[in-house]
Amino acid sequence: MLPLTTRRAASKASTRYLRHASSSSVGAPSPSRKVIFSGIQPTGVPHLGNYLGALQAWVKLQNEAAPDTKLIYSLVDLHAITVAQSPELLRQHKRQSLAALLAIGLDPERSIIFVQSDVPQHSELMWILSCTASMGYLSRMTQWKSKLNLAPNAKPLESPLQLGLFSYPVLQAADILIHGATHVPVGEDQCQHLELTRTLALGFNERYGPVLTEPETVLSPTKRIMSLVQPDKKMSKSATNPKSRILITDSPDEVTKKIKGALTDSIGGPHTFDPVARPGLANILQLLHSLDHRRIATVEDLTQEFKDVSMKALKDMLADAINKHLEPIRTRYLDLTGGTQAGELDRVAEEGALKARASAEIVMADVRRVVGLSR
Amino acid sequence: MLPLTTRRAASKASTRYLRHASSSSVGAPSPSRKVIFSGIQPTGVPHLGNYLGALQAWVKLQNEAAPDTKLIYSLVDLHAITVAQSPELLRQHKRQSLAALLAIGLDPERSIIFVQSDVPQHSELMWILSCTASMGYLSRMTQWKSKLNLAPNAKPLESPLQLGLFSYPVLQAADILIHGATHVPVGEDQCQHLELTRTLALGFNERYGPVLTEPETVLSPTKRIMSLVQPDKKMSKSATNPKSRILITDSPDEVTKKIKGALTDSIGGPHTFDPVARPGLANILQLLHSLDHRRIATVEDLTQEFKDVSMKALKDMLADAINKHLEPIRTRYLDLTGGTQAGELDRVAEEGALKARASAEIVMADVRRVVGLSR
Repeated sequence: MLPLTTRRAASKASTRYLRHASSSSVGAPSPSRKVIFSGIQPTGVPHLGNYLGALQAWVKLQNEAAPDTKLIYSLVDLHAITVAQSPELLRQHKRQSLAALLAIGLDPERSIIFVQSDVPQHSELMWILSCTASMGYLSRMTQWKSKLNLAPNAKPLESPLQLGLFSYPVLQAADILIHGATHVPVGEDQCQHLELTRTLALGFNERYGPVLTEPETVLSPTKRIMSLVQPDKKMSKSATNPKSRILITDSPDEVTKKIKGALTDSIGGPHTFDPVARPGLANILQLLHSLDHRRIATVEDLTQEFKDVSMKALKDMLADAINKHLEPIRTRYLDLTGGTQAGELDRVAEEGALKARASAEIVMADVRRVVGLSR
Repeated sequence: MLPLTTRRAASKASTRYLRHASSSSVGAPSPSRKVIFSGIQPTGVPHLGNYLGALQAWVKLQNEAAPDTKLIYSLVDLHAITVAQSPELLRQHKRQSLAALLAIGLDPERSIIFVQSDVPQHSELMWILSCTASMGYLSRMTQWKSKLNLAPNAKPLESPLQLGLFSYPVLQAADILIHGATHVPVGEDQCQHLELTRTLALGFNERYGPVLTEPETVLSPTKRIMSLVQPDKKMSKSATNPKSRILITDSPDEVTKKIKGALTDSIGGPHTFDPVARPGLANILQLLHSLDHRRIATVEDLTQEFKDVSMKALKDMLADAINKHLEPIRTRYLDLTGGTQAGELDRVAEEGALKARASAEIVMADVRRVVGLSR
């Protein structure tokens, strides 16, 4: 194993991102500062499920981070193309997604916000990790099966499977490792990929010396926001009925109409929080709890408080809460996408790309050196 | 299908490489100029088998090319790491390989000579092609089996196979397509990969519009140079006995000793060219024919001419011919690696990287645009 080094050949990279290697015997660098990385596919304007499930947590992490914590958030467009995409729609969705990230409160002065394909180091590291990633291990990943709607026992080589959909967990590992991330907030379904990421980092470090940081999984608290018309299904971008979801840019009228039309039940009596027997009502209570500014401890406490108000009153309260919460987000989003700040998105994307390239080059220069690729 | 475009967003790319799209209905651009691309793994100083089998043809192509033909030759270090490599040795081999390419007569003013890992667009396009490359098709490629010494019926997911060794034909396709190559000189064993390259180009063009050029295979005339000590095996870098091969930098003494010690037979009588029954003799005659400055038409004609000279005289002639041929190559190689031109290699590599990045960016900018990745 190579000795730890404090030399960082970050020629073109900003020195403000230099990490200090400390003495360690476990084969991985122990970064002295926290680096938070997460990514989201550019699917256009997020709905409340995306927002409350992941994005709101990104903002919270940003706003509560220690001053020396580095935050990096990526729109992972290279992952979006593992399934067929309309190029025009992809371009439009990337713009909308970027505007949404800014609108909800991510601050490009505080966090690095960038588009994955603007940073070639992600693809470069992906290839290098490919040379150590086991085919057998990758074939046990499960997400490609659900993305292709295949049975859990489907075999990679007998399925209509493209290489990208099989190998993208390695790109995801590169996304994380290229920035030296120490903490990665993800949902439950991504834990398997974080495990692979750590395995690849460990394997690389064992072969070449301590260059890659093994990241910790930061599990997001599960808030399953359900469809407004089929409350046994998750709120989803791909559901055909637009009334099933609330976009974070919906107008107050749209929000009110969609909430009024939300499917509940006619069981009657006091409200109860029961996601299985009363999924529609539970979804409304869950949403109300997520948005309640008084921060009531649990959704059950909130249910108790409102157990005797009418369904109509409950829905009115929810529509009001959503509209109050989304109003500044919507205003900022409209400003960014058509209003007074038309050039702002390009400027943010360009600056994010520069910062992300500098961040990635720190690790990439080390990787090239220890693998023997650089002169 | 998108219409053909003459716009080439080659912002940072030199305009001298702009291709002109012509009207065409087959879905692939019809480049108005020939672009020759080939690559070789950096295994250090080439032996006579490498030189006479492939590299000499590169020089010939360069020297006989029409003035507007673009020539691109790559040291493919990203392919070298699909099997375990010592970083120090890889670095040293790259330097030696580059010096050898210059020493044999490749001219960096005429041909783009570069190291693959210096050009991130290769990895970038590789990922994009991964999203359309079929796993089933890739599993029918045969080279990974021979590289792992596996049986022809070995299964990818049940073998100790790394992703890189399975997916490298897609990187090879990217190597070729990223430079818009029209002609690719290769050996017989690479025809399968060229076919995959064309399939990927065609598939991409059908989905996104005519951006990638389907390259033609230029099959190198087979000159199998055999081991000097085991003439039924190819001359090889990895054979343990260094007397089995002649490096193009061997001193006259070394060459003479190795040729004198070459295994032949004691059948006696006039020499005959019979690679099966008399492989050692056939190898000597083949080498002599390859290096004969009078350009005798066939190795059989040459055999006829020399059928009655002694084996010793034949070997003396061969040693002389090799030494005469290698002398300027050896001198130039020694100059480049330790002599008077110490900085030349770095300068050539750096300039090659710049030119190759500019060349690759022409196609990459088009790819990003049609896939919807660029803004």
